[in-house]
Amino acid sequence: MSDKTFMHKAIRLAAKGKGRTSPNPMVGAVIAKGGKIIAADYHRKAGTPHAEALALNKAGKRAQGSTLYISLEPCCHTDKKTPPCTKSIIAAGIKRVVVAIIDPNPKVSGRGLRELQKAGIETLSGIMEAEARKLNEAFIKYISEKRPFVILKIAQSLDGKIATASGESKWITGEKAREYVHKLRNEVDAVLVGIGTVKKDNPSLDCRIRKGRNPYRIIVDSNLQIPLDAKVLKHNDGKTIIATIPPHPPLLKEGIISSPFVKGGHREIFSKKECADYHKKIDILNDMGIRILTVKEKDGKVDLKFLMKELGKCEITSVMIEGGSSINASALASGIVDKVLLFTAPKIIGGVDSISSIGGKSLALLQNAFKLKNNRVRKIGDDILLEGYL
Amino acid sequence: MSDKTFMHKAIRLAAKGKGRTSPNPMVGAVIAKGGKIIAADYHRKAGTPHAEALALNKAGKRAQGSTLYISLEPCCHTDKKTPPCTKSIIAAGIKRVVVAIIDPNPKVSGRGLRELQKAGIETLSGIMEAEARKLNEAFIKYISEKRPFVILKIAQSLDGKIATASGESKWITGEKAREYVHKLRNEVDAVLVGIGTVKKDNPSLDCRIRKGRNPYRIIVDSNLQIPLDAKVLKHNDGKTIIATIPPHPPLLKEGIISSPFVKGGHREIFSKKECADYHKKIDILNDMGIRILTVKEKDGKVDLKFLMKELGKCEITSVMIEGGSSINASALASGIVDKVLLFTAPKIIGGVDSISSIGGKSLALLQNAFKLKNNRVRKIGDDILLEGYL
Repeated sequence: MSDKTFMHKAIRLAAKGKGRTSPNPMVGAVIAKGGKIIAADYHRKAGTPHAEALALNKAGKRAQGSTLYISLEPCCHTDKKTPPCTKSIIAAGIKRVVVAIIDPNPKVSGRGLRELQKAGIETLSGIMEAEARKLNEAFIKYISEKRPFVILKIAQSLDGKIATASGESKWITGEKAREYVHKLRNEVDAVLVGIGTVKKDNPSLDCRIRKGRNPYRIIVDSNLQIPLDAKVLKHNDGKTIIATIPPHPPLLKEGIISSPFVKGGHREIFSKKECADYHKKIDILNDMGIRILTVKEKDGKVDLKFLMKELGKCEITSVMIEGGSSINASALASGIVDKVLLFTAPKIIGGVDSISSIGGKSLALLQNAFKLKNNRVRKIGDDILLEGYL
Repeated sequence: MSDKTFMHKAIRLAAKGKGRTSPNPMVGAVIAKGGKIIAADYHRKAGTPHAEALALNKAGKRAQGSTLYISLEPCCHTDKKTPPCTKSIIAAGIKRVVVAIIDPNPKVSGRGLRELQKAGIETLSGIMEAEARKLNEAFIKYISEKRPFVILKIAQSLDGKIATASGESKWITGEKAREYVHKLRNEVDAVLVGIGTVKKDNPSLDCRIRKGRNPYRIIVDSNLQIPLDAKVLKHNDGKTIIATIPPHPPLLKEGIISSPFVKGGHREIFSKKECADYHKKIDILNDMGIRILTVKEKDGKVDLKFLMKELGKCEITSVMIEGGSSINASALASGIVDKVLLFTAPKIIGGVDSISSIGGKSLALLQNAFKLKNNRVRKIGDDILLEGYL
């Protein structure tokens, strides 16, 4: 068995932690000697032991003189409750350490391996790097930029429609594709929708798979139009967040207030009563356990780039945008999208009046179209899934 | 070598006639004895000898006692200049005849094989039937329904857009996909566009590949708006056809004529002068060698179903629709489309104001969406080609 084989095993183990390790990366560790695996384990959840610690513990004295395969460089910092893994590796008498990728966390990057080298341990990095990097693509983005990795998920017809003119959208894609979306909800930290989708489709935004866990639910609602009986407000896990524009209207003249409220895409003048209602609604929502995130305004709407920074501060490492048309367009235009997951059903809806997957305004120049790279296409049931990066 | 292997060879040979045999099918023939091929050939062009005749001629006396593989049942009718192939097969002393498909032409269907059986020849049909059927899908539709096989070709972005709001559409798909379209133009009998595409893009609609031949060019132009300097009118091969609504306006009152002319999608009253101009334009176009096909009206536009019948009468067996948005929608709605070829570039254009691939009016119900079957997805350069059937 080669280094690649053992690393492959470590990465596969790491993947078992999908959706559970955030804001930590997924990590798997394999300890091998004489071509055989002695012990292997993976990081299960933030706050619990690291993969290396678990594997070393399993191996005990047998770790002496063996090779340790880890999907990510081991930590050497001491600002956590757990002791740095490098110390345990040295103490265990490991002879050789192979890692897939250097830790993208600037606090650790390369320092873990140097510490091991200093202790006389042979090190190798870059084995199955691409696979390990893909597995932790969300963590890598988050740890380097302090903003979540953003996936734009779209379920559309062949001609790019997500609903008929009357708003009918259930269902365009098939059962397998929808199941897959629930699997994804189990893996990302948060899902995000625009208020239009809440008003039209009234989704629960939960994860309907066995042993699934619900992600955070972010509703972008610049004007706080959310109906108080919306299904998405029924969860009482404290994981529903409404992003809205702060109501900071200076009093202009008696009874009239200028506000960054938006009606039909334009700033308008609101009455004192309307502003008071807004504040009252925030109070009610807070009482319901809903978090209100007041964020910066951009062109009369929630500034999505700013919102992502705020979500990063909440240790949300990945966000899946689930529509609609308008928020999809804003997300792309604001440059926050990292990856696109496009489910296309083999059907045609047609119509100049039906709803396109990406709304907003047309590009002035075709050459400015958003190009996707490293595209992978596969079938999910009858539908086609394209996965690409911006 | 098995029957399948020889038939595969016959079908591959048949395919060499792509785009040249119309209104005849593509046919390949292989003569084999003792597991070896003695002679093989294919039908090259309507009016020239059939594949079987060519192969039998090559084989000469060696055909005696051999097996003949033909991708389509041999003809037995005597209404052509060439003698029926069944007679030549019997005369050559062929022992066994294997065909992929029974001739879909009701004149021949099954009769060719029965004639051979009567003469004591062993026959077998259905070997590699699916492949042979796919190869001649256009011919099969044409011969059974007397209407061309219609391919709807679309080149769009991931979000189903074929142009920006300003009409910029060059180029959404990559070079390889565009080359492929020229290959297709070499294979179909005709390409068809709406007048909108002629006015916006001014295409030549020619086939730009080495040794390519230009297809018929059909322009659907209900109101005869085509500019006389349009590039598509510059060919002088007599293969440009304009389909328009017949000007049969009954005189209503002095100077005013009611006509099926359409302005902005509505019937309008036209002046005598406008009608005279229409007739004059037809004369000019005819003088330029352009054929004018006046067809039935449906909802103020050319009735595409009727048009297909007319094209069938012209022995046009296959038509590739190449846009734009409006004609694509009409074609789907009218039920003339057999196959969709959807080239999707890995880019997003977005915009509620950009042009969707399928225009027209939205469906009232999602369940009435046009579903594609037997879908095949593959990459052409950076683009994705989906091939599906309605």
